[in-house]
Amino acid sequence: MAYPTFRQSLVTLIAAGATFSSARADEGMWLFNNPPLKQLKEKYHFEPTPQWLEHLQKSSVRFNSGGSGSFISSNGLVITNHHVGLDTLQKLSSEKNNYVRDGFYAKTRAEEPRATDLELNVLMSIEDVTPRVTAALKPGLTAEQSAAARQKAIAEIEKESKEKTGLRSDVVTLYQGGAYHLYRFKRYDDVRIVFAPEQQAAFYGGDPDNFEYPRFDLDICIFRAYENGQPAKIEHFLKWNPEGPKDGEMTFVSGHPGKTDRQLTLDELGDMRDHEAPYLLNMFNRREVFFTAFAARSFENARRVREDLFGIQNNRKRYDGYLAALLDPDIDRSLKAREQKLRDAMSKDAKWKGTLAAYDRIKKAQDETAKILPVYNYYEAFRGKQGASYRAPRGFYSNLFKYARRLLRAGDERPKPNGERFPEFRDSNKESLELDLFSTEPVYDDMELVMLTDSLTDLASRFGYNDPLIQKVLAGKSPTARAAELIKGTKVKDPAVRKQLYAGGAAAVKAANDPMIELAREIDGPARAARKVFETQDETKQQAYGDIAKARFAIEGTSNYPDATFTLRLSYGTVRGYEENGKPIAAFTDVAGLYARSAEHNNQPPFDLPQRWIDKKATVNPATKFNFVSDADIIGGNSGSPVVNQANEFVGIIFDGNIQSLVLDCIFADKQARAVSVDSAAITEALRKVYDANALADEIGK
Amino acid sequence: MAYPTFRQSLVTLIAAGATFSSARADEGMWLFNNPPLKQLKEKYHFEPTPQWLEHLQKSSVRFNSGGSGSFISSNGLVITNHHVGLDTLQKLSSEKNNYVRDGFYAKTRAEEPRATDLELNVLMSIEDVTPRVTAALKPGLTAEQSAAARQKAIAEIEKESKEKTGLRSDVVTLYQGGAYHLYRFKRYDDVRIVFAPEQQAAFYGGDPDNFEYPRFDLDICIFRAYENGQPAKIEHFLKWNPEGPKDGEMTFVSGHPGKTDRQLTLDELGDMRDHEAPYLLNMFNRREVFFTAFAARSFENARRVREDLFGIQNNRKRYDGYLAALLDPDIDRSLKAREQKLRDAMSKDAKWKGTLAAYDRIKKAQDETAKILPVYNYYEAFRGKQGASYRAPRGFYSNLFKYARRLLRAGDERPKPNGERFPEFRDSNKESLELDLFSTEPVYDDMELVMLTDSLTDLASRFGYNDPLIQKVLAGKSPTARAAELIKGTKVKDPAVRKQLYAGGAAAVKAANDPMIELAREIDGPARAARKVFETQDETKQQAYGDIAKARFAIEGTSNYPDATFTLRLSYGTVRGYEENGKPIAAFTDVAGLYARSAEHNNQPPFDLPQRWIDKKATVNPATKFNFVSDADIIGGNSGSPVVNQANEFVGIIFDGNIQSLVLDCIFADKQARAVSVDSAAITEALRKVYDANALADEIGK
Repeated sequence: MAYPTFRQSLVTLIAAGATFSSARADEGMWLFNNPPLKQLKEKYHFEPTPQWLEHLQKSSVRFNSGGSGSFISSNGLVITNHHVGLDTLQKLSSEKNNYVRDGFYAKTRAEEPRATDLELNVLMSIEDVTPRVTAALKPGLTAEQSAAARQKAIAEIEKESKEKTGLRSDVVTLYQGGAYHLYRFKRYDDVRIVFAPEQQAAFYGGDPDNFEYPRFDLDICIFRAYENGQPAKIEHFLKWNPEGPKDGEMTFVSGHPGKTDRQLTLDELGDMRDHEAPYLLNMFNRREVFFTAFAARSFENARRVREDLFGIQNNRKRYDGYLAALLDPDIDRSLKAREQKLRDAMSKDAKWKGTLAAYDRIKKAQDETAKILPVYNYYEAFRGKQGASYRAPRGFYSNLFKYARRLLRAGDERPKPNGERFPEFRDSNKESLELDLFSTEPVYDDMELVMLTDSLTDLASRFGYNDPLIQKVLAGKSPTARAAELIKGTKVKDPAVRKQLYAGGAAAVKAANDPMIELAREIDGPARAARKVFETQDETKQQAYGDIAKARFAIEGTSNYPDATFTLRLSYGTVRGYEENGKPIAAFTDVAGLYARSAEHNNQPPFDLPQRWIDKKATVNPATKFNFVSDADIIGGNSGSPVVNQANEFVGIIFDGNIQSLVLDCIFADKQARAVSVDSAAITEALRKVYDANALADEIGK
Repeated sequence: MAYPTFRQSLVTLIAAGATFSSARADEGMWLFNNPPLKQLKEKYHFEPTPQWLEHLQKSSVRFNSGGSGSFISSNGLVITNHHVGLDTLQKLSSEKNNYVRDGFYAKTRAEEPRATDLELNVLMSIEDVTPRVTAALKPGLTAEQSAAARQKAIAEIEKESKEKTGLRSDVVTLYQGGAYHLYRFKRYDDVRIVFAPEQQAAFYGGDPDNFEYPRFDLDICIFRAYENGQPAKIEHFLKWNPEGPKDGEMTFVSGHPGKTDRQLTLDELGDMRDHEAPYLLNMFNRREVFFTAFAARSFENARRVREDLFGIQNNRKRYDGYLAALLDPDIDRSLKAREQKLRDAMSKDAKWKGTLAAYDRIKKAQDETAKILPVYNYYEAFRGKQGASYRAPRGFYSNLFKYARRLLRAGDERPKPNGERFPEFRDSNKESLELDLFSTEPVYDDMELVMLTDSLTDLASRFGYNDPLIQKVLAGKSPTARAAELIKGTKVKDPAVRKQLYAGGAAAVKAANDPMIELAREIDGPARAARKVFETQDETKQQAYGDIAKARFAIEGTSNYPDATFTLRLSYGTVRGYEENGKPIAAFTDVAGLYARSAEHNNQPPFDLPQRWIDKKATVNPATKFNFVSDADIIGGNSGSPVVNQANEFVGIIFDGNIQSLVLDCIFADKQARAVSVDSAAITEALRKVYDANALADEIGK
C-alpha cells in the first residue's frame, strides 16, 4: 500500500465525493420506536421483527462518559472502543501502573478494577410524552415562563417515572423541539475493566491517521458490568460472529450518535460556520498547544495529560472537517436547497404559510443568545444533561472548579422544589450526579495549575483586564498566582470533603469558606443570569422548531429521523469501499497491512508497533481482516457501537468515520463518506494470538 | 541538578522577582551615538573611548532575517545563533542533505554554500535628521498629508545618502517619533555557511527548555561574508577570548533588539494586553497545531516545517510570557506609576501642560486603527521595513502569495516618484527587495497547501462566509479547493519567472494572467485602503509621541535610550546568578550538566544528545563552562549579539532570555531577569573536541 505523505485535505475530497441524495441511500439515525422498516424492506428485503429490534436495543449500552457499546456475554461483558474506555483507563492509571500505555488484562474476576465514575445506561422503554410536555405551555406565557413550565412538566414526568419503575428516566427532546420522548434506562454504576490493548495498538497511527482510511486500529476495550458486587446477569447480549462481515454485506449499527445539525435552519448553520466552529477550534488549538507543551516536559507529564490531549486533538480534527464542509459551496448549495424546498412547500399551503415566521423567531433567538454567549461560554457553559454533559466553563477549565461549583449549586438547588431546579440537580439525576461528584479520579495539582492559569488568562483576554468581574475573579493577583492560590487553598480535591459538604448542604458549603467554592459563588450571579437568557432563548427556538416539525411531518410524512441527541439510534449500511483521487480504497484492511505501515515509517511514533505485536508477528495470521468501512450513517458518540448482521450477531465495532464523513454533521453523504469499524475477526485473533486472552475470548458471546 | 517536572509558571516568578527601579541598574538599550558614559563611569569606573565604541559598532552585524551577530575574523567569519542561521540552513537543506538535523562544517572555502537570500548589515554611521524630517510637516496639513510629506522627506534623505555614499541608507524612527536618525549600512549579500552544529545541540531541551535556565545550548552558527566572490576583508572584528567571562564580571552586549514597548502609553499597553497579544497568541496556536499535525505525518514533512515551527513556538512562548507580565498587578502598578510621574511633571509645568493632550490623540488614533485592524491584519499586515519585515497578511499565509503580491506591487509602485512609493519599493531598498524576491529558497507545494488552506479558512471565519470580499477571494470554491487551484496555477514559484515579471513591470505582470497575482490584485484595493488608514493614524501617533518625547527630554533630560527598533544598541550587565523559589541559580552551567540532563530524561527527545556528543563524551572536558547569564538589558532580535569584556574581546554570545526576562518588553527588571549566553569557552571546546573543526577554531579571532 502506498500512503501519500500528506493526504489531500478535506474539502477537495468531500466536494469531489459528496452526493447528498443518492436514491435508496443508507441514510438515517433512526429511533427504535420508529425504525426504517419500509426502507429495509424495499432495498434489502429484510424485515426485522419486534423481537429482533428489542434484542438489539437491550444489547446496546450507552457509556455516559460519551460513547456506545454492547453486551457480549451473559456475565456482563461489555465491549466498547479503547478511546471510550480511555477516560476510565486514565483515571485508574498511575506513574507505576500505566494501563493506557501498557494495556491491561484481568485474568481473574478478582483482578478487575472498578471504574471511578463510569455509568452505563441500557434503554428499556420509550414513551411519547409530547402532548403532556406541550400541554404545560399555556397560551400567553412569556418565553421565560414557558421555559419554566416546560422544565417543570419534564421534571414531573421524570420523577414520576423513576418512582414508578426505579429506572433512570429522561425526557429527551427530539426534532429540536418537535417531540418529547420519555426514555427509561437501566443504570450500571459498578463497571470494571477486563481488557484493554496498549493505546498504541488501539490508536495506531495517532493524530495523523485519525479520521483517515485505510486504518489498522484495535480500538477496543472490554468492561464488565456488576450488580450487587457480582457480574451482572444479562438477558440480551449479542452473539459473537468471529468471521466479521463480508464485502457488500448489509449491516446494522446500534449506538448513540451525539449530535447532528441536519435540521437546523440555515441561519443556525451559518452561525455554526462563522462563529461556533471557529470559536471551538480556537479553544481546541489553545488547549492542544498548552497540553502538548506540558507533556513535552517529562514522561509523567505526558502520561497525565494523555486522555485530555487525545480528546482535544480528536475534536480539533473533527471540527476542522465540519468547518471545511460548511465552507464548501456544493454543500452550501445543498443545504440551501433543502431548506428552500420545505419553505416553498410551506408557502404553497395556507395551513403552513404562517409557520415560515418560525424561521425568523429562531434567527431572533439566535441574535439574542449571541449577546450573552461570551459570558455564557466563559462563566457557565452548561449544555444539556445527557452524556459527558457538564461542559466546563471556558474561563474555569479545572476539575477542582467543577467540583467546587457543583457543591455550591447542589447546596443552593437541592432545597428548591424538584421542578424548579437545574436539571442536573433533579431527583431523577441524583445517582448520576453523586457518582460523578464523589469520583476518586486523580486530580494533579500541576495539571490544574496549567489549565486554570491558561483559562484565567483566556478569560482576562476575552473581557479585558479592567472588566470589573475579571478584577473580582483575579482578586488582585496575576492569573497564575491566583490559580496557584486557589489550587493550594481548596479542599474539594478530597472526595471525603466533597461528600461531607454535599451532605451538609448550603450551610456547610458556606461555612467551609473554601476559596474555590467562594470563587464559584463570586461568579454565580452572572453565570446564572447568562444561563437564564440562554435557556429562555432556547425555549423560543424549541417552540419554533416544534412548529416547523409539525409542518415537516405534514408535508414530508412522519417517517423521518430526528437529529442525533446521544440517544439510541439504529443505522444501517453496506460494507463497501470507495474511490479517492481516482484510486479504489478497499473496504477491508488486514494484519499484514499493519506491519507494512509500521515498516514504511521505520516503526517511529506514531507508527510504531507495541512490543507484543512485534514479538507475536510470526504467530498472528497476516490475512486476518483488521478494519472495514461501511456507508452506515454515524457520527461522534457512535464510537463503540456494535455492527451486527441480519442474524443480530456482532461482526464489528464502529470506532471512526473517514475524513469524508465529517460532512455528516449537517448532511448525509455516501459516495465517499464511510463509517470505520474494527472487524470481529481481528478482535478474536488479537485476543487469542497476541494477548494470550483465550479465557476472555472463550467467554465472549456466551 | 534537580529539575522540577513542571517549573512554576511565569508570573509568580516575575512578580516575586521583579524590581523595576533598582538603583544603578544595568538598564538600557543605548544608541551608539548616545552611549551611557555617565552610568558606566559611575558604576563601573569604565570609560569607553570613541575608538572602543567604533570598533564594537563596526564589528557588530545585523542579520536582516531577524537577529544579530559579529565579525570574528579578518577573513569575514561572522558568528550568530543557530536559530538565527536556521532560516538559511533550512532553505539550503533537502531530504538528502539535512543540515538542520545533521549540522554542517565546510572544511574548505570551496565547500561553503551560499545563502539563498541572506543580507547582513554593518552600521557605518549615524546622523540625526530630525529637523529635516519634521520640517516637512508644515502646519495645517491633515494627518494623511503629513504622513505623505514625512515619507517623501524620508525617501529623499535615503536616496540622497545612498547616491552619495553607496551605502544602504535607512531613516529610523526613534522614541516612537521623537527623533529620526539616518543609519548608513554596509551591505553583504553574498553570505555563506561555514559551520553549524546539529539543531539538537543548538536547541537542546527544545520547547520545554526554551526561555528557561539552567541551559546547555550550543546555539551558534558561523557564516562567512564574501565580496566579489572572495572572503570579505574585515577591518573591525572581535578578538576571541577562549576563557569566557568570570562570575561577577561586567560585560557589554552589542546587538539589535527588535522591539520594546517601554515608552508606549498605558492605553497602548492596555491594547497590547487585551487585544494584540491575545490576537497573536491565537494565531500562533493555530499555526503551531496545523504545522505539528503536518509534521507528524512523515519525517520529510517534519523536516520541511522545522524552521517555521520553531519560530512559531518561540513566539508563542515569548508572547505567553509578555502577556503574563502585562496581567501582573505589580507590573501594572509600575507601568501606571511610570506614566503618572511624567504626566504629573507635565501638569506642573505651563510649558508642557498642553502636551497632555497628546495622550488623548494617541488613544483616538488607536481607536481609529482598531476599526480597520482586522482588514489590515488579514489582508495587508505590512509593518515597517526593517528586519524580517514583510509580515504576511494573516489571511494569505503563503510564500507564493508573498511573491505574487510583491510582483504586483512592484509593477504598480516602481513607476511612481520615489517619495510616493511604499517604502519597500523605494530606490534605497532596491537591492534588498530583489535579494528577497529572487531567492532560490525551496517552496513546497504540500506545505503551501496546508498554510493557504488554513489561512483562507481563518479569513472566512473572521469575516463570515457571506462577506462579499470573501466570496471574491474564494471564487466559488472551498478554501482547500481554492488553495489547490492557486498553487497549481501560479508560475511565481520559479525565480526566473519572478525576474522576468519584475523586469517587465505592470504590463508583464498583467499579461501573465497568473491566478495568485490576480488574487493579490483582487484584494489590493481594500488592503491598500486599510494600510492608508493604519499609516495615517500612525502618523498621528508619531506626532503625539514626538510631543511627549520633547516634554520627556526637557523633564527627564536627554540621556535616555529609545525603545528597541531592530537597530544597533549597546547594553551592559554583570554576569550573575539569581534566586528562584528560594534556591540559588548559578550564573554558569557546564558540559557535565548537559550529560546529566540527558541521563535524567533517558536521552529521550527533546533531551536526547546528538550522536557526536555521545561519542565524544570521554574527549570533551566536563568542566567547560557552557552557558551563562547576565543582567544585561536585551530582547528578541538580540539573538546572536556578541558579549564582550572591557577589552572588547568576544566572551560569549546571547541566545535567549530566561522566563523572568519576558517582562522586559514593557519594563526593565533585574532581580531575576537574565540574558542567557553561550560561553566562548564552550564554543572553542566544541569546535576542537566535538566537531573536529580545529582549522576553523584556529581562524577565529585572527
